[in-house]
Amino acid sequence: MKVAVMGYGVVGSGVVEVLNKNQESISKRAGQEELAVKYILDLRDFPGDVNEGKFIKDFNIILNDDEVKVVVETMGGLNPAFDFVSKCLNAGKSVVTSNKELVAAKGIELLNIAKEKSVNFLFEASVGGGIPIIRPISQCLAANEIDEIAGILNGTTNFILTKMIEDKMEFADALKLAQDNGYAEKDPTADIEGIDACRKICILASLCYGKHVYPDGVFTQGITKISSEDVEYAKSWGGVIKLIGASKKLSDDKISAWVRPCFVANGSQLASTTDVFNAILVRGDAIGDVVFYGRGAGKLPTASAVVADVIDCAKHVERKKLFGWGESKENYVADYLDLPVTAYVRLSTSDKEKAKSQLGDIKVLTRDNAKSDELAFVISAKTERELNDTLSKLDAEVKNIIPVTDF
Amino acid sequence: MKVAVMGYGVVGSGVVEVLNKNQESISKRAGQEELAVKYILDLRDFPGDVNEGKFIKDFNIILNDDEVKVVVETMGGLNPAFDFVSKCLNAGKSVVTSNKELVAAKGIELLNIAKEKSVNFLFEASVGGGIPIIRPISQCLAANEIDEIAGILNGTTNFILTKMIEDKMEFADALKLAQDNGYAEKDPTADIEGIDACRKICILASLCYGKHVYPDGVFTQGITKISSEDVEYAKSWGGVIKLIGASKKLSDDKISAWVRPCFVANGSQLASTTDVFNAILVRGDAIGDVVFYGRGAGKLPTASAVVADVIDCAKHVERKKLFGWGESKENYVADYLDLPVTAYVRLSTSDKEKAKSQLGDIKVLTRDNAKSDELAFVISAKTERELNDTLSKLDAEVKNIIPVTDF
Repeated sequence: MKVAVMGYGVVGSGVVEVLNKNQESISKRAGQEELAVKYILDLRDFPGDVNEGKFIKDFNIILNDDEVKVVVETMGGLNPAFDFVSKCLNAGKSVVTSNKELVAAKGIELLNIAKEKSVNFLFEASVGGGIPIIRPISQCLAANEIDEIAGILNGTTNFILTKMIEDKMEFADALKLAQDNGYAEKDPTADIEGIDACRKICILASLCYGKHVYPDGVFTQGITKISSEDVEYAKSWGGVIKLIGASKKLSDDKISAWVRPCFVANGSQLASTTDVFNAILVRGDAIGDVVFYGRGAGKLPTASAVVADVIDCAKHVERKKLFGWGESKENYVADYLDLPVTAYVRLSTSDKEKAKSQLGDIKVLTRDNAKSDELAFVISAKTERELNDTLSKLDAEVKNIIPVTDF
Repeated sequence: MKVAVMGYGVVGSGVVEVLNKNQESISKRAGQEELAVKYILDLRDFPGDVNEGKFIKDFNIILNDDEVKVVVETMGGLNPAFDFVSKCLNAGKSVVTSNKELVAAKGIELLNIAKEKSVNFLFEASVGGGIPIIRPISQCLAANEIDEIAGILNGTTNFILTKMIEDKMEFADALKLAQDNGYAEKDPTADIEGIDACRKICILASLCYGKHVYPDGVFTQGITKISSEDVEYAKSWGGVIKLIGASKKLSDDKISAWVRPCFVANGSQLASTTDVFNAILVRGDAIGDVVFYGRGAGKLPTASAVVADVIDCAKHVERKKLFGWGESKENYVADYLDLPVTAYVRLSTSDKEKAKSQLGDIKVLTRDNAKSDELAFVISAKTERELNDTLSKLDAEVKNIIPVTDF
């Protein structure tokens, strides 16, 4: 069986490397005499590359070659990935992708084409890099109703937060270190603003609750506003700040889904997930809490997830029935402002005692060398809208609001 | 499709409960009009049970009923489980079991019968209770060489150790609390002596390295010798004591495999696995470290893993190609005494300075209120045999030796 790889970047070249290196054992596991890469599609030239002779620039060569049964899409971005992938599926080829942007935006359309054409559209590598998560969730799902899913879904931001927590670095310095280490792009927006994590929670929520969740309906807040003061208060509260993507079933027609920095208590699996690692917690009715932990990015971890999907495609000529979800109605994702919340709040006020008396039942937090006008506390409210309303009535400047989780 | 459940104990009754409760959604997921329990085999009577009318005492009724395509074995023990399961497989019925003793001792024989008869023999629930682990490992394996696997595989001992660490309880009191809470049996031997964990690491090592690992070849030490002194020294070293089952590939024909208490450094996923939770770390060449965490026992978590296997059997009439391993040669598992080791040692000696000078390069550990003749340290040696030899030459009484891990 022949495989084509579209996009020879970090992940794509890793896929070719893993397929070449372990060709014999992988072919055996896939139940194929030979499972080999026939084409690599990339507009760039790679003179001297060991795979010279396989590079092509014309997508139609892949599309029209009946020998190619599985196509790997590791180009990233929506275009032309969506066009290429839908054409491959329509031509009866299975597609494996690591492209979370594609799956989050167009997953339902592509799954529907795959269903119609009885081929596979697999995307294990789109969430959690090398961590097996898409298939284990399908497995959990088989005998469980999943109530909630939450995770540290972006390695770059987790690295930055870890440096802020453990080495007391400021955000800007930690970001620079991440860039110097190759963990963050020159333009780090998609990571630090939570956009990447948002795409991943959309994919997970779509899978867990059976209806497509679109990124634009999901409240998304990055980590750029986290200061060393917040990190210190989290410590005095007994935890750490993590960028969490989470989704919860509220009813058959309603879920919550959001991405934002959260307080996570020490001792939990998510709190001890440091550096570039990811962790995803699944809460099922029978199974309780299950956590999947590992490297959420990187060439070889992600490539190994792609290759596992390729093997699965080669093994199961017929379409797998595991994956798939339907369309969601408008307002399927609840407004986060309507959800109950317990949150840490930091504000400055000239009259702390007055603010405290107006706030009612709060737990005040302390830190060394706090400014005299600084007040930090944990407060619960029926909705976040109500909390905002309460805070707006104070004679105070709110510096940050960070929800407290039970993950 | 009809299912028979053999053994109506904690797990078996949980399986029937989950199948009954979610019958509609489970049948749909299994691609069956109806996936229902037809028989429950148990020698005991259950007057007034909601499933009255399904109870039978004669195994042959299941064996001779062609409508029963999937049989769940939740009796535990080797006999008559082995006899019943092999007869079912030979009769062309798929079998799902949670019985680790059966899989660890007879897995290869049963897998071979299943292969011959083109049916499934699945055992996800035999390791890690509800945590998806057997299938994710197969998935990891697809594109990775697994170098090492290690885990906290027994919830009872982890609960006891957690109480000793967090509440400074002595072993005997913590064991009694575990029994009072229903986490430990009246006869706790299989848990506290590491026998249960040994069966599980045998199953995992068989799966990871492709050759059957028998429990009697695996060095197994329980937690009964752990004292509050050891717990304190672990803390001063910067970690905790966990009962670890581990296996590592040494060459194509040789692995290590053992169960024993170990020092685990704080901050790791295994260190933060407390109470009755389990965690299993898989170290692959491409994927790096991946950890699976959740409830390793309990009625509903374990039942949900069994039901997921039942659904898989119903979905795939043909045999799944995922599982299976071959026979191992003699001495496949290395003698632990021949392995390199770094270990914590606690001993008593009338001349500490002399002992230190004889030991050479050690890292001395301290604790409050240590006895004057007490010496505790971390030492490395080329083999554990060499370490024992070194210690035997001291004028000292060795109280405990606990390996230090990098998990």
